[in-house]
Amino acid sequence: MTLEVGVLGYRFMGQAHANAMARLPMFFPDAPDVNRRVLVGRDEDELADAADRLGFETTATDWADVVDDVDVFYNLGPNHVHAEPSIAALEAGTPVFCEKPLAPTLEDAEAMAEAAREAGDDVPAGCAFNYRFVPAIQYAKRLLEDGELGEIRHVRGRYLQDWLVDPDEPWSWRLDEELAGSGVLGDLGAHTVDLLRFLVGDDDLAGEMKRVSGHCRTFVDERPVDGEGGDGDAETRPVTVDDAYSAQLEFENGAMGTLEASRYATGHKNDHTIEIHGSDGSLRFSLERLNELEVLRADENRGYETVLVTDESDPYVDHWWPPGHVLGWEHTFVHENYEFLSSVASGEPFAPSFEDGLATQRVLAAIEDSDDRGEWVSLA
Amino acid sequence: MTLEVGVLGYRFMGQAHANAMARLPMFFPDAPDVNRRVLVGRDEDELADAADRLGFETTATDWADVVDDVDVFYNLGPNHVHAEPSIAALEAGTPVFCEKPLAPTLEDAEAMAEAAREAGDDVPAGCAFNYRFVPAIQYAKRLLEDGELGEIRHVRGRYLQDWLVDPDEPWSWRLDEELAGSGVLGDLGAHTVDLLRFLVGDDDLAGEMKRVSGHCRTFVDERPVDGEGGDGDAETRPVTVDDAYSAQLEFENGAMGTLEASRYATGHKNDHTIEIHGSDGSLRFSLERLNELEVLRADENRGYETVLVTDESDPYVDHWWPPGHVLGWEHTFVHENYEFLSSVASGEPFAPSFEDGLATQRVLAAIEDSDDRGEWVSLA
Amino acid sequence: MTLEVGVLGYRFMGQAHANAMARLPMFFPDAPDVNRRVLVGRDEDELADAADRLGFETTATDWADVVDDVDVFYNLGPNHVHAEPSIAALEAGTPVFCEKPLAPTLEDAEAMAEAAREAGDDVPAGCAFNYRFVPAIQYAKRLLEDGELGEIRHVRGRYLQDWLVDPDEPWSWRLDEELAGSGVLGDLGAHTVDLLRFLVGDDDLAGEMKRVSGHCRTFVDERPVDGEGGDGDAETRPVTVDDAYSAQLEFENGAMGTLEASRYATGHKNDHTIEIHGSDGSLRFSLERLNELEVLRADENRGYETVLVTDESDPYVDHWWPPGHVLGWEHTFVHENYEFLSSVASGEPFAPSFEDGLATQRVLAAIEDSDDRGEWVSLA
Amino acid sequence: MTLEVGVLGYRFMGQAHANAMARLPMFFPDAPDVNRRVLVGRDEDELADAADRLGFETTATDWADVVDDVDVFYNLGPNHVHAEPSIAALEAGTPVFCEKPLAPTLEDAEAMAEAAREAGDDVPAGCAFNYRFVPAIQYAKRLLEDGELGEIRHVRGRYLQDWLVDPDEPWSWRLDEELAGSGVLGDLGAHTVDLLRFLVGDDDLAGEMKRVSGHCRTFVDERPVDGEGGDGDAETRPVTVDDAYSAQLEFENGAMGTLEASRYATGHKNDHTIEIHGSDGSLRFSLERLNELEVLRADENRGYETVLVTDESDPYVDHWWPPGHVLGWEHTFVHENYEFLSSVASGEPFAPSFEDGLATQRVLAAIEDSDDRGEWVSLA
Repeated sequence: MTLEVGVLGYRFMGQAHANAMARLPMFFPDAPDVNRRVLVGRDEDELADAADRLGFETTATDWADVVDDVDVFYNLGPNHVHAEPSIAALEAGTPVFCEKPLAPTLEDAEAMAEAAREAGDDVPAGCAFNYRFVPAIQYAKRLLEDGELGEIRHVRGRYLQDWLVDPDEPWSWRLDEELAGSGVLGDLGAHTVDLLRFLVGDDDLAGEMKRVSGHCRTFVDERPVDGEGGDGDAETRPVTVDDAYSAQLEFENGAMGTLEASRYATGHKNDHTIEIHGSDGSLRFSLERLNELEVLRADENRGYETVLVTDESDPYVDHWWPPGHVLGWEHTFVHENYEFLSSVASGEPFAPSFEDGLATQRVLAAIEDSDDRGEWVSLA
Repeated sequence: MTLEVGVLGYRFMGQAHANAMARLPMFFPDAPDVNRRVLVGRDEDELADAADRLGFETTATDWADVVDDVDVFYNLGPNHVHAEPSIAALEAGTPVFCEKPLAPTLEDAEAMAEAAREAGDDVPAGCAFNYRFVPAIQYAKRLLEDGELGEIRHVRGRYLQDWLVDPDEPWSWRLDEELAGSGVLGDLGAHTVDLLRFLVGDDDLAGEMKRVSGHCRTFVDERPVDGEGGDGDAETRPVTVDDAYSAQLEFENGAMGTLEASRYATGHKNDHTIEIHGSDGSLRFSLERLNELEVLRADENRGYETVLVTDESDPYVDHWWPPGHVLGWEHTFVHENYEFLSSVASGEPFAPSFEDGLATQRVLAAIEDSDDRGEWVSLA
Repeated sequence: MTLEVGVLGYRFMGQAHANAMARLPMFFPDAPDVNRRVLVGRDEDELADAADRLGFETTATDWADVVDDVDVFYNLGPNHVHAEPSIAALEAGTPVFCEKPLAPTLEDAEAMAEAAREAGDDVPAGCAFNYRFVPAIQYAKRLLEDGELGEIRHVRGRYLQDWLVDPDEPWSWRLDEELAGSGVLGDLGAHTVDLLRFLVGDDDLAGEMKRVSGHCRTFVDERPVDGEGGDGDAETRPVTVDDAYSAQLEFENGAMGTLEASRYATGHKNDHTIEIHGSDGSLRFSLERLNELEVLRADENRGYETVLVTDESDPYVDHWWPPGHVLGWEHTFVHENYEFLSSVASGEPFAPSFEDGLATQRVLAAIEDSDDRGEWVSLA
Repeated sequence: MTLEVGVLGYRFMGQAHANAMARLPMFFPDAPDVNRRVLVGRDEDELADAADRLGFETTATDWADVVDDVDVFYNLGPNHVHAEPSIAALEAGTPVFCEKPLAPTLEDAEAMAEAAREAGDDVPAGCAFNYRFVPAIQYAKRLLEDGELGEIRHVRGRYLQDWLVDPDEPWSWRLDEELAGSGVLGDLGAHTVDLLRFLVGDDDLAGEMKRVSGHCRTFVDERPVDGEGGDGDAETRPVTVDDAYSAQLEFENGAMGTLEASRYATGHKNDHTIEIHGSDGSLRFSLERLNELEVLRADENRGYETVLVTDESDPYVDHWWPPGHVLGWEHTFVHENYEFLSSVASGEPFAPSFEDGLATQRVLAAIEDSDDRGEWVSLA
């Protein structure tokens, strides 16, 4: 059986997923066969060009024509078009893989999760938090599940970029609340919250996040519109989302957490770091060195050990190259596509699900709410 | 002229300062001559032994006999004996160098700062925040003062230790609110807050801390009393201070800050790290590699540059060894003693002063207060 | 025009190149179209299976049937089958891409280079030293070509693996002089020598390697034959190649070099490091962190700056992902296939050529010769 | 009993040792009492000034008056005055502590070792290789002695500085063969050779160095004389020593070694690194991070573990500060003075001895000899 796939969105994420699908046969021979059937977008010229480059059979400009006509629907569009097509697909019984954050608003996310629940377990609805599928993160997860870190006490997550440092960097849809929902919270914070939930969210580890205190800030209030003006009074548009956020967390087991993200961290390009301290050990991970995990087990180590997670026994690595032949960022998409498509084929549930996407959304909303109110907010 | 020095306290800090004084003549020949005149403590046997080892002429068991009989008074005792002897010395016109945190309570700190104000500018009252005197930190300060980092956006400070990870680690006075005032807040957080105030507190950088949101936690509520019990029901005592804290900050210029400290960060011994992002550059420092500063200037660097701050042109380094011959933790005490004693000899003001100690205390108190109230607290 | 490609070899290198060809259309749209026409090997079953997985139209068991029937011939077989098929292809006017080391013996390498010369410039004969195509290495090359390092004084290259540490690791063809030609010299040292030639071999940098002093050693003289024995007297076979080598170099400009490789460097998986010191700056690179280059320019830096070579302006990176979204080992094959196939299509020369492969071979032979004779050997 | 100490030399090394002696009472209370009795030098004014600063009772301009009048003689003068005063002292039965390298020539070194032998075991003759006394190095030694690294296969030592990169850097006595004996070989290479002998020289580890192949080079042949000239034709003097060297080694057990040192390694100030690979583990050490040792044990670690060697249980650390309170370069002198003076007081042998100094000298001479002859040289 070949899965006919329809994909909405052909830019960054469109390419990342198309590439992932294209690589499955050579490296994951037990993955379901996939046909890149139809690419959905609005601009017909760009769309045709993209379909050609990304290997799609055909194109469509209306997702409504697609969602019940394919075996799987990928929603890789901007945040404000996540809800409606995804819900329509699920209502049609079509499995959906939706990019993160699940939705621009908590309400949308709830509606999406509800649609997934109603579609039932054999219609997987996945939220594409790709960083769960870094081999080093899966390796960390194994250590945590095996109890190697003991009782979790501290959790730290931080996602630093610097592409807005220059106040003349032009305005984009990502800076508009209507279109993006939020700024770094949804774009970067969503990754961090999901990754921490994945790693320590089990009941016998830290459990769910119980309370949060948030802090959001917009450093530059308006930005020039690209390519316009030129006669001395260049047009600007307001920035209506957060440029940076920080948060403090309390987990169910009493562990403390601190979160942070920014687009103003000069010199940092894509620096997503996770740190965990438990009574028996500690872990550190940085996305810019994604083949490595720093591990400290109190009974064996006196300092962190830099594990190069590229051995045949490491998660997913047996599909690729010999030890020390490092993988890149895009491999996370191959792994998540493998898992998601296998779930579709087998009708088994997939995680991270829409439910996971919603749980993350609740934390992000609570951070914003806390920032508004100046006090801690419970996630009861 | 030789300064006659009286020192209260002969343990860890007593040794660190006595060593510092002993090393001045060989490495800082322009420092005032110092005579380690009298060492003050309660246990006469231990005291005699310490005086011999640390090079003091004589001993005393009552600080009241000492404070107006010496040219300088060092208060290196536990936190709960900081206020009374320091105030008595200042009232006698004797300059005081007091270990950090300035006092166990905000009230005590205010009284001490008031006594310092009344004693006047020519009676220096210093709070011994030694980390200001790490060459790499002074080098960072120079860069910041020169505006090399531009507008400050993010500040991060974190002090991690792990000596309480084991719940069987015995109770000590540091875990008692009456004796210590607080836990990690005063012991570790005080260093972080002072260092950040020193580095970015100037009005044309981030300015003072304006608002804080705090989070404190005690992970282990009671601990065994060392050396007691043995008949099956070992005595325990309650832990009445914070084992860990985190905080979010807003600075006057709008910069965001996050702070953290813990005694439960498995594998970290004395890991005090500072990170700063400005519009033109970023800095990173870690106390466990105190000879290094990581510097990123956006116009020159694409990544952090690891500067080994041991050149002759670096702060204090011309007093020591050739480039690459690294210094240790204790050298910070030599530098601060040099500066403090020079202030005493010249009658010039010294920083960090009691006023600085008080300012830090206010931040720590606000963090505790915020944690109690579950909301942000202003430092107006 | 579509290039019809024939490939000899379907294991590790076969997969690396097939994957590279498969990825060109999506990421390098200006690359020539490629048809994976025929896969050549001896075991028909394995071959059929590999052709299916690697996307080849058909298979052949005799390379002689293939070399003049395709537009390009890839020779990815073991070292002892490099010479004959490559020469036959070139004689047929078919461009050849041959894996490194060029040949098991200097004589073979000379014959191959001679065949390439006779085939002429419009029949590219490339030697697949893929590490030239790491973006960070190309970035280093730019710095060197721009004279940023000044006069080259020191060059260091080292390739460390550990898969032979265990004396019970079974014998393989790589340990047999007849089949492999040499041990680490050809397998690892060839990469190092080529990379250094590429980086500093220009006349206005260090120039060619002029003299070498070599040291080779076999630590374990015989190894068990895998899967045999079991009745107490397991068969072993002799190891007839070098397990490790070191060398000292003198370059034409007087620069000094040291080289090293081993399969006994416990804990190192694929650690290929290059270090260069010039009068104006220094560089460091490590393959296990291949997205990074450490750069020190004496007029700007006091320490090494860790450059994450993933910006749009960096070599090849505009074809891939945004800054900070790191690449992996396999991307070097995409880059070299892009360059080689473009050369084939345009009839332009390609480097590294068979001539480069031969130059490297001469250095390796001189190292072996020097080791035999116990004295320096000139490469006049 | 108080040891009366006479010291020849009052510059860099004079200060390093005087400081070390001054610090013993406070930190090593069981060390012998030491009286800095007499400081020996030629320039009376400078000498008087130094004696005052370094805490000596008196001065002398002729070492001959001193060597049999003190309990211990420290020879910290330039290399060409190592032999005669040291031999005279030993002949007078006075223990000698001589800076490295032991002597400018192998002949001198042999005469010195002979004098030490004749003086007998209860007259310690120490060669001040201070890097043996870094806690991290002693910790490494423990691991090696306990067999934690298994069979030693590879040893690497490298000492990089950059103070001669600029060709206008003035001439000094260190660049004159008559006065210095050699360049980097004696100044830096001596440290490396001694450290490797200390760490792996035991018979059940790698054993002694058996054969060497050396390479020496002078990059800048003459240099300006400081402070002279100015009328357009500044005087220069020839550089008659090596600016850089490399060497290959074979140890008794068959292990391979590579050595290197340079004063032209742009950006490196005092970068002495040691790396060892054994069948069961690997080690790395760098002097610029001297509180750390990177350790990899194959049965426990997958990567190097960065051990901060500052725990109470670590060598010498219990004399100093709590965990994580790092030591500096100068502490190595305190440790070696403690050990040497304790040997003097007890009449026990001290290592590194003149015999060790001579053994190192033999290796250095063989490297030079090999460089001259262009072939390997045996150290039978």
